[in-house]
Amino acid sequence: MKIPPVKGTRDFYPQDMAVRNWIIDGWKKVSLRNGFEEYDGPIFEYLKMFQIKSGDEIVEQLFSFQDRGGRELALRPEITPTLARMVNQRINSLPRPIKWFSVPRLCRAERPQKGRLREFFQWNVDIIGVDDVLADAEVIFCAVDYLREVGLTPDDIVVKISSRKMLSALLHAIGVSNDLEAVYAVLDKRSKLADDAFAQLLAETVTGADKRAKILQLMSVESVEQIDDVMNLPPEAKESVDELSRLFELLAVMGVGDYCVFDIGIVRGLAYYTGIVYEIYDKASELRAIGGGGRYDDLLKLFGGPSIPATGFGIGDCVLAILVEEKGLLHKQLPAPKLDYFVACVDEPYRQAVVKLTMKLRSAGWTASFSYKAAKLSKQLKEASDQNARRCVIIGSEIENDQLIVKNMATGEQESIKLGKFLQQCHVELR
Amino acid sequence: MKIPPVKGTRDFYPQDMAVRNWIIDGWKKVSLRNGFEEYDGPIFEYLKMFQIKSGDEIVEQLFSFQDRGGRELALRPEITPTLARMVNQRINSLPRPIKWFSVPRLCRAERPQKGRLREFFQWNVDIIGVDDVLADAEVIFCAVDYLREVGLTPDDIVVKISSRKMLSALLHAIGVSNDLEAVYAVLDKRSKLADDAFAQLLAETVTGADKRAKILQLMSVESVEQIDDVMNLPPEAKESVDELSRLFELLAVMGVGDYCVFDIGIVRGLAYYTGIVYEIYDKASELRAIGGGGRYDDLLKLFGGPSIPATGFGIGDCVLAILVEEKGLLHKQLPAPKLDYFVACVDEPYRQAVVKLTMKLRSAGWTASFSYKAAKLSKQLKEASDQNARRCVIIGSEIENDQLIVKNMATGEQESIKLGKFLQQCHVELR
Repeated sequence: MKIPPVKGTRDFYPQDMAVRNWIIDGWKKVSLRNGFEEYDGPIFEYLKMFQIKSGDEIVEQLFSFQDRGGRELALRPEITPTLARMVNQRINSLPRPIKWFSVPRLCRAERPQKGRLREFFQWNVDIIGVDDVLADAEVIFCAVDYLREVGLTPDDIVVKISSRKMLSALLHAIGVSNDLEAVYAVLDKRSKLADDAFAQLLAETVTGADKRAKILQLMSVESVEQIDDVMNLPPEAKESVDELSRLFELLAVMGVGDYCVFDIGIVRGLAYYTGIVYEIYDKASELRAIGGGGRYDDLLKLFGGPSIPATGFGIGDCVLAILVEEKGLLHKQLPAPKLDYFVACVDEPYRQAVVKLTMKLRSAGWTASFSYKAAKLSKQLKEASDQNARRCVIIGSEIENDQLIVKNMATGEQESIKLGKFLQQCHVELR
Repeated sequence: MKIPPVKGTRDFYPQDMAVRNWIIDGWKKVSLRNGFEEYDGPIFEYLKMFQIKSGDEIVEQLFSFQDRGGRELALRPEITPTLARMVNQRINSLPRPIKWFSVPRLCRAERPQKGRLREFFQWNVDIIGVDDVLADAEVIFCAVDYLREVGLTPDDIVVKISSRKMLSALLHAIGVSNDLEAVYAVLDKRSKLADDAFAQLLAETVTGADKRAKILQLMSVESVEQIDDVMNLPPEAKESVDELSRLFELLAVMGVGDYCVFDIGIVRGLAYYTGIVYEIYDKASELRAIGGGGRYDDLLKLFGGPSIPATGFGIGDCVLAILVEEKGLLHKQLPAPKLDYFVACVDEPYRQAVVKLTMKLRSAGWTASFSYKAAKLSKQLKEASDQNARRCVIIGSEIENDQLIVKNMATGEQESIKLGKFLQQCHVELR
């Protein structure tokens, strides 16, 4: 009986696994050098935990199920609710600031599209307990530190940054009295909609043609300074404008200013952002967002904990993999499989010696291999060469005098050496 | 709103994550040096895929759900069906032998107990395409290579080995004509049941008191040779007995013979094993099995592929973690968090210089940290020491003359050095 994989999922054959490992190992390495510690949670949680943060509309994007005890559970579509739960559980014993990262496997019941699958990996980096914009700058630096490390330049990617707090003050000043969350959700769709479709959606949410015109004007400014041309900067927006300036100054000091721009159109659809918000895109805007994040000072409280400031981002593996592949950065950076020793067997009587030596080399930390089949030496040397062996150890009748031959596969040179000396050179523990 | 984690799942706080990473990184390292390549599949598959191999009774041990298209899906309780599916999909292009490993996250809807959770990690190592017992020996070696590497000795653990093929021939010779799978399932429970409970279960499955008595006698032999005392070795069992002898001989050659014993009581409950079978236990038999495996030559065919021999094992993380902890092997082997540089700020005017240098060090590959708060130097030095910093870079008024101070935290020595020279020493690219 032949059963296919489920659509929107991936099989990771060794060459695909090499790509996934390269991406995730890179995330881990950069997180650690930026001073973050790794955490993870369960792949399923109570369904209601995902509703707290994202409301009931999230439910249809979830894979949910009941366990035998009738508990309503769901596969995690994101790890932030788990992060909030875990931090709240130990809020009194965890030293602050909490600088944590994770590389969770996430599942969403979405229609699969380019760069969007039903199962993927996401790099999450968060700082909890620092209200200074320095923390926002540091997590943005961490994202760029990784993206720069894999070879992406300011010509390839851009971090578009704005402030929810500033936008909120501006919308208030314009006189928008609706539920601001609903307006954010509409504004978030702007780049994905045609102008008239967007105008219509806005009309459904904001009453008053003059207010809508002001919003459209505002959405077209290209720098913080240009806001003045649209409207007088209300005093309540002043603080967030200063914060944005300080953020850009810090990003410049950190050496990643050339990756970052102000973009008032970045609002993030999710309800829980409270300050700085940003999204990372390919410069050509041909792909979905590579990632995004921002400040979420109220989230821990929402999950039953104290009010503690927090900021962080998420970057998925799917769009990222497409981008590094398209830019020609992927394959030259993948580590090549390595084989330290291929142990060849000249004739059957020496097979036990071959097996014995191979296992000794492995236990001493070397990658070592041999042929399962009795084959001519020339065929075994080809097998060694196909496996990119650095050296081939040849075991034949000389082994009766404790001698073997070691062939350097790069130069073709070979030498005869005493078994004991060879083992010593390889730091094989003699058991 | 405060929501607890789901029972039987684990939160991996940084110190727990360090243990999980240590275990999984060890599995990966040993797999690679033994010549295995890593693969993985999706965390959910079609429900029916798990029924093929394990029958309908597996369904109640699964977390299953429907997607919006009404597809019946389930979280994977094991990865072997996925392995069979993936290999079959590319059977004509994959070079053989296929030597693959995986470290999947698995989910089972079981009642949580010591060493058994509803979500766990399992190391899987398989060789597909080699019918020689050398392949069985090699995967067993690989398991022991890891267990020995973490410090477990033959006094701590034992690999109990038998042969399904031999048992089948012996049961036939005794005259057991029932469905052998049902008898295996009963025999597999022997070590978990009291003698009378086991005898009763056996009576329900095997008719004929004389046959049952023979089976009980057989189950008490302690070596292959002792089978002769119970019954004449039937000719059909001869081949498997020879195979077992060759396996033990190979394991001795490989240097792991002292971890391995013959145990006729090892039958493995699962239906799909066809030859050599084994389970790994703590020597004191106080814990559940650490892992187990065997030969499964018919599995690929069962999944719609050709008939190809295969052999492999699985080792979970839960019992293993308990054992290495109990043996005192865990904490001394966990890598300590490292911090290459703590960059201290003598006074606020130098904060930008501190931030700038920290980020430069990070991008050059060093783990570097600084304090978010303005604090006295003595307090920052304590913070550096708390974080196990190897060196502390002190930035004060000297930076105006491009000078800084580097303090070796182990020796307490400190030196004044030119910024440019320091950057050069740290291989910081000057952008």
